[in-house]
Amino acid sequence: MSDEIIFREDMSVELVKSSASDADVVWAARVSTAGDKSLEDVGVDASKSEGLINYLARERHGSPFEHTSMTFFVSAPIFVFREFMRHRIASYNEESGRYRELKPVFYVPSKDRKLVQIGKAGSYTFVEGTSEQYEITVASIKETCQLAYENYQKMLAAGVAREVARAVLPVTLYSSMYVTMNARALMNFLSLRTARDGSHFPSYPQREIEMVAEKMEAHFAKLMPITYGAFEKSGRIAP
Amino acid sequence: MSDEIIFREDMSVELVKSSASDADVVWAARVSTAGDKSLEDVGVDASKSEGLINYLARERHGSPFEHTSMTFFVSAPIFVFREFMRHRIASYNEESGRYRELKPVFYVPSKDRKLVQIGKAGSYTFVEGTSEQYEITVASIKETCQLAYENYQKMLAAGVAREVARAVLPVTLYSSMYVTMNARALMNFLSLRTARDGSHFPSYPQREIEMVAEKMEAHFAKLMPITYGAFEKSGRIAP
Amino acid sequence: MSDEIIFREDMSVELVKSSASDADVVWAARVSTAGDKSLEDVGVDASKSEGLINYLARERHGSPFEHTSMTFFVSAPIFVFREFMRHRIASYNEESGRYRELKPVFYVPSKDRKLVQIGKAGSYTFVEGTSEQYEITVASIKETCQLAYENYQKMLAAGVAREVARAVLPVTLYSSMYVTMNARALMNFLSLRTARDGSHFPSYPQREIEMVAEKMEAHFAKLMPITYGAFEKSGRIAP
Amino acid sequence: MSDEIIFREDMSVELVKSSASDADVVWAARVSTAGDKSLEDVGVDASKSEGLINYLARERHGSPFEHTSMTFFVSAPIFVFREFMRHRIASYNEESGRYRELKPVFYVPSKDRKLVQIGKAGSYTFVEGTSEQYEITVASIKETCQLAYENYQKMLAAGVAREVARAVLPVTLYSSMYVTMNARALMNFLSLRTARDGSHFPSYPQREIEMVAEKMEAHFAKLMPITYGAFEKSGRIAP
Repeated sequence: MSDEIIFREDMSVELVKSSASDADVVWAARVSTAGDKSLEDVGVDASKSEGLINYLARERHGSPFEHTSMTFFVSAPIFVFREFMRHRIASYNEESGRYRELKPVFYVPSKDRKLVQIGKAGSYTFVEGTSEQYEITVASIKETCQLAYENYQKMLAAGVAREVARAVLPVTLYSSMYVTMNARALMNFLSLRTARDGSHFPSYPQREIEMVAEKMEAHFAKLMPITYGAFEKSGRIAP
Repeated sequence: MSDEIIFREDMSVELVKSSASDADVVWAARVSTAGDKSLEDVGVDASKSEGLINYLARERHGSPFEHTSMTFFVSAPIFVFREFMRHRIASYNEESGRYRELKPVFYVPSKDRKLVQIGKAGSYTFVEGTSEQYEITVASIKETCQLAYENYQKMLAAGVAREVARAVLPVTLYSSMYVTMNARALMNFLSLRTARDGSHFPSYPQREIEMVAEKMEAHFAKLMPITYGAFEKSGRIAP
Repeated sequence: MSDEIIFREDMSVELVKSSASDADVVWAARVSTAGDKSLEDVGVDASKSEGLINYLARERHGSPFEHTSMTFFVSAPIFVFREFMRHRIASYNEESGRYRELKPVFYVPSKDRKLVQIGKAGSYTFVEGTSEQYEITVASIKETCQLAYENYQKMLAAGVAREVARAVLPVTLYSSMYVTMNARALMNFLSLRTARDGSHFPSYPQREIEMVAEKMEAHFAKLMPITYGAFEKSGRIAP
Repeated sequence: MSDEIIFREDMSVELVKSSASDADVVWAARVSTAGDKSLEDVGVDASKSEGLINYLARERHGSPFEHTSMTFFVSAPIFVFREFMRHRIASYNEESGRYRELKPVFYVPSKDRKLVQIGKAGSYTFVEGTSEQYEITVASIKETCQLAYENYQKMLAAGVAREVARAVLPVTLYSSMYVTMNARALMNFLSLRTARDGSHFPSYPQREIEMVAEKMEAHFAKLMPITYGAFEKSGRIAP
């Protein structure tokens, strides 16, 4: 086995490219009312833009937020991607275990990850585990990943196809993908995959997808600060 | 009535902004095989990129074409927008007859527009009309638009709401919209809304939407020449 | 001109077929928790089903509502269909002015339709007009439709193609379509196209699309009464 | 550990409910041309229906195929679901490893599964492996699943949350889901996830998703035989 097994505790999100600004929202909204397509005149008066964007978000006029595009390169475990790809208003390209040999990089929870679920179905919360629970978790994951990857390599070495051999790999294996979303779809994603005080949605997302969502949110807030503010003001519901 | 009636024979399509290049396709496709996200290394070897893009289009690996975004500002008659908006993988914002008074700009066919349909349902073609047919067409459209707009103005002057008064306006009235599409959705649009020798689809699109599609196609061909070539080579079927 | 012009004041919505019941939602939701696919056991306990469906709607677990399908045959003016077809999570087939000669059936507002818009952009309301305003409206619409249809017929008689001749027809012309939606998409449609006291959305839909939406809502309420109740309880926001 | 580990070689697909017939396609298509909504008259003349459906499929008039709905209950390994859920024009509800303890049921290839990939990227084919290769594969998968499930149970027994403990489970674990699709989306799925002589697409799907697709195809062919025939005749391209 050539590659050494790596255990990571973090998610990575890189903004690859974007065509997304608050002005894009304003232009698109103004076509409804003024038919004004002049790119020069629009967005000059920042306070007017803010008022318009807040209005659009509050009243759920969602379409003006769609004329934007953000492409992220995300590395996260398979169990995160499984949840992520349920969001259908997005474009995905993920690395393929059919076309390439997968690298031995696996996710283990950090010490900060609350391990114990309390409450009943529909209103779970999480609390910190004991250090013994943490050690059992880390040891169980590491032992399984180690054996799984050995067996993966054993099958590849015997000439078995990658797409068959990968069957043994656990869902904590890291994968990577390009994902492209518009701002409206992204706000919907954030509304369901982050938990905030004051959020409209009491259901908790799994912490690991929230770690990815938080990094995407930071990029979004920087690219489209007025839109982001409007999203916050309307209870983090997507327009 | 303050505005003078304008009759136009053309469509206009302006590329407002884009984040769309052949390199975007290559990056997204390579994540499947190599996991290589380095923006520097990719797309250097143009001939390799072309081979990859041709392969993706031919084999209908469509997802790598989606990490692109083009926003157009289109002015065309309502009957064109009615067909256009049946394409659901796109984002639209159109000027609203509820929020603003609509301007008296109407489409009339030019002398080049073939007016006579021959053949049976499912395999129509068009041939040129006589000059008498053309004159009847232009006169009928102009007379109707004139009266319709006068009645529109009469209702507005009487204090009737814009959304009610617009009921009289004919579908040849110009409207305008922002539309944002990715390259895959655009290729699907072009495949169905243009007619070309050698095209896979014998059905004829209505000439007026084809006039819009041709202008969009010219922008697309300039932004993504290799992808455009691959689209042409695979019989103008969207991947 | 063979056909006599008809003026209508109403919309028609026929439920053509459906595969949509509250039990469908319950089955789909329970696969998440119990993996129970036994069709016999599920939905027996009505009060439990209601609790589950209310929970799903409140927490915006929307996907279980999607395993349902309702097909409607709708007749309404073109300006209503223009708004309707902006809803992209739906399937449409509309009668075509390219393939058939369109019948002279036109919408005119009834005396109940409030004609006068007050307030400013973003917070309009409507109030009743005077009888003079109503008469101007009806007369303007009727006169325009009459001339438009005469000119349509004149062009057809001269051998001009239907797709060209239709340019003169006003957006108050009735069209008809099949539309198929799942319950989640339908709730989203209703949330945006009806105005109710207590609704989350202060923006007013145009009354004519609301007339269509109300008829669809009545079918939905009968087919899926528990889901409909949950939709009402959660402020008419789609899950 | 209470549950005994089960290894399966097959996929299961159950047709839960459907509202999908060839007549649905005919009705929807005829609204374009005739506006005929009479349910009695349509579809009586079977040969006419077949001609129409063949025409629609050949010319890629896809929308009439959408007024149909089929709900399947599918059990298959996670690596199959990962590919399946990339199809976005569909509705999904999958059992959740966050809400329930997952059962120890794992996929191992049968002796018929060709294990060895030959050719180069983009034009792979598969050939049979040796019995030694088969034994290595089965032994590797069984050993890994055994340890993974033991460790899963160990973490659960220690009070660790299900969503954390599941990290160790391999992608060959069976999951189950409801999936609802219309006939157009299903034909697109089949076109990409089955390989047939004479198919338009030379790329091979992974055999395991093809096993699922074949079972879905059998249900589809029975429900909509004329549509299925038209799909076959047009080279298994979705309209």
